[in-house]
Amino acid sequence: MGVEVSLDEFGLIERIRRRTGARADIALGIGDDAALLQPQPGQQLVVTADTLNAGVHFPQQTPAADIGWKTLAVNLSDLAAMGAQPSWCTLSLSLPDASPGWVDAFAEGFFALADAHGIALIGGDTTRGPLSLSVTAMGQVPAGTALRRDGARAGDDIWVTGVPGEAGLALAFWQQGLLDVSRPAHDAAMEQLRLRLARPTPRVQAGLALRGIASAAVDVSDGLLADLGHICARSQVAAELLERALPVSTAAVVGGHEAAFRAHRATAGDDYELCFTAPAALREQVRESMSCVAVRATRIGYIRDGSGVHLRNEEGVLQSAGKSGFNHFPG
Amino acid sequence: MGVEVSLDEFGLIERIRRRTGARADIALGIGDDAALLQPQPGQQLVVTADTLNAGVHFPQQTPAADIGWKTLAVNLSDLAAMGAQPSWCTLSLSLPDASPGWVDAFAEGFFALADAHGIALIGGDTTRGPLSLSVTAMGQVPAGTALRRDGARAGDDIWVTGVPGEAGLALAFWQQGLLDVSRPAHDAAMEQLRLRLARPTPRVQAGLALRGIASAAVDVSDGLLADLGHICARSQVAAELLERALPVSTAAVVGGHEAAFRAHRATAGDDYELCFTAPAALREQVRESMSCVAVRATRIGYIRDGSGVHLRNEEGVLQSAGKSGFNHFPG
Repeated sequence: MGVEVSLDEFGLIERIRRRTGARADIALGIGDDAALLQPQPGQQLVVTADTLNAGVHFPQQTPAADIGWKTLAVNLSDLAAMGAQPSWCTLSLSLPDASPGWVDAFAEGFFALADAHGIALIGGDTTRGPLSLSVTAMGQVPAGTALRRDGARAGDDIWVTGVPGEAGLALAFWQQGLLDVSRPAHDAAMEQLRLRLARPTPRVQAGLALRGIASAAVDVSDGLLADLGHICARSQVAAELLERALPVSTAAVVGGHEAAFRAHRATAGDDYELCFTAPAALREQVRESMSCVAVRATRIGYIRDGSGVHLRNEEGVLQSAGKSGFNHFPG
Repeated sequence: MGVEVSLDEFGLIERIRRRTGARADIALGIGDDAALLQPQPGQQLVVTADTLNAGVHFPQQTPAADIGWKTLAVNLSDLAAMGAQPSWCTLSLSLPDASPGWVDAFAEGFFALADAHGIALIGGDTTRGPLSLSVTAMGQVPAGTALRRDGARAGDDIWVTGVPGEAGLALAFWQQGLLDVSRPAHDAAMEQLRLRLARPTPRVQAGLALRGIASAAVDVSDGLLADLGHICARSQVAAELLERALPVSTAAVVGGHEAAFRAHRATAGDDYELCFTAPAALREQVRESMSCVAVRATRIGYIRDGSGVHLRNEEGVLQSAGKSGFNHFPG
């Protein structure tokens, strides 16, 4: 069926192919039935796949370059959470129509991030359909050194990079008509929030630096409590989070939105920060390793025996999530 | 944004996860930020990605089990064309609604084929959106032995497996209202044609058997002339096809549809057969290797210096495709 209705497949693929980076370990790139890659001896392969749909994972008005960035960012974030070095990726692009301008802008955002991390696009396809972007990203990690969700132990510290909740605040502002996602904001604080949603920073260097230090890691895509819940479930431990320890957003404070930010920061998604655990004895090593890669990391709680994630202030428990983590997705 | 609108992600993923096969080289499967895999030493990784959209790549009425089969089949076909042993795959499933029955039927077709080829599902995601299926399939091949498109040489024979054109004929019948794709046909010949469209057989064993014999290979997804055109373009040679040598469809002949079949067989897609070239000196080895894997292979022409694909009957050229292969996809 594809014959009658597909896009100008060759032209679009060519526009994307000529942008992709070179790597010595690609024996054969785009242009055959499949790519041929040479994994490094002694390494394990790390593979993740994530799809973004227009109107579901980003507002329809999002500029193509931001969509390109975010499509790759959410996948790099999963590699980061494993402590993997990004290597190769595939991209399946479903487009409502064949617009070279859109594709070029998309490629600009996609490859800006790809080139920064040395990940090469080695395959994929373009089909006609509602706007949807599927990436499978592959990375490599020395055998046995990957960061997993199941290694947290009672007594470990809990850390988070960056400031979870800023992307969620930006999304809330957009939904309230206070933020236009399609162009830079005039206000500097608002622009900082917009960029947290439009151009999240996958914490690849932080993930690499945490190998041998962190006992468990997860990326914060569904919200801090929910994602930390995955670590607790897989490690069969409980997490105690201290509300006063959670990072504060300067942009939110400057803009006078601190209350709104506080309401979002533990449950809002889309930040793509890393939440990780590490033995208390390695506290200084965590600080040094994060300082080396210029990533802010905040100690926000500790792991204990038990189950679930518990967020407390001085008076008691504010929020709690069950054994299997939050399920944000009722049918 | 995913938080508010996603499917019951955990339930659906669980329905799929419990069906996936085990492999000793999976250090960590579904359930962490990414999968951890152990490639075999000395092997190259073979990676391909293909997306199917409802109404574009299959009729909306197609049963879920057939969609599941075909989603994997088109990707296994690309691995087959490289001579790769299938290993792992990811699946991104975009669904209009969370229907456990649909997902179970889809999984039935998908895993029937996956289990037959020992390929394990190791990641992916489910999102809400128009029905769309993206697979990235990974295989392995001893370094330097992959079948590529660029190895055809003047004097090589051209071969094709199976009977290209049967899937295209079935599609034409469906478009004319003569075939219901949603249920078995009463007529045996018509049912054979329907299955060629609904349940194509990726030629994985044939691809493996052709390592060291074939000089170039491609899978026939866009039509025999178009796909052979890719071999010619990449190998910088011309192909001469003899019309009287092309395989005849018994099902078409029995059903009285031979003329319609002949009109389709060189240009219709969706067959997922292999078209390959091999030195004339290896003709017997081709026959033996295909006989070992019980795959019909037909010698249909030869490679010469020049460019393009030329289909001839006794009177002269019937159809010709240019240097860069057909482009079926005008913008």
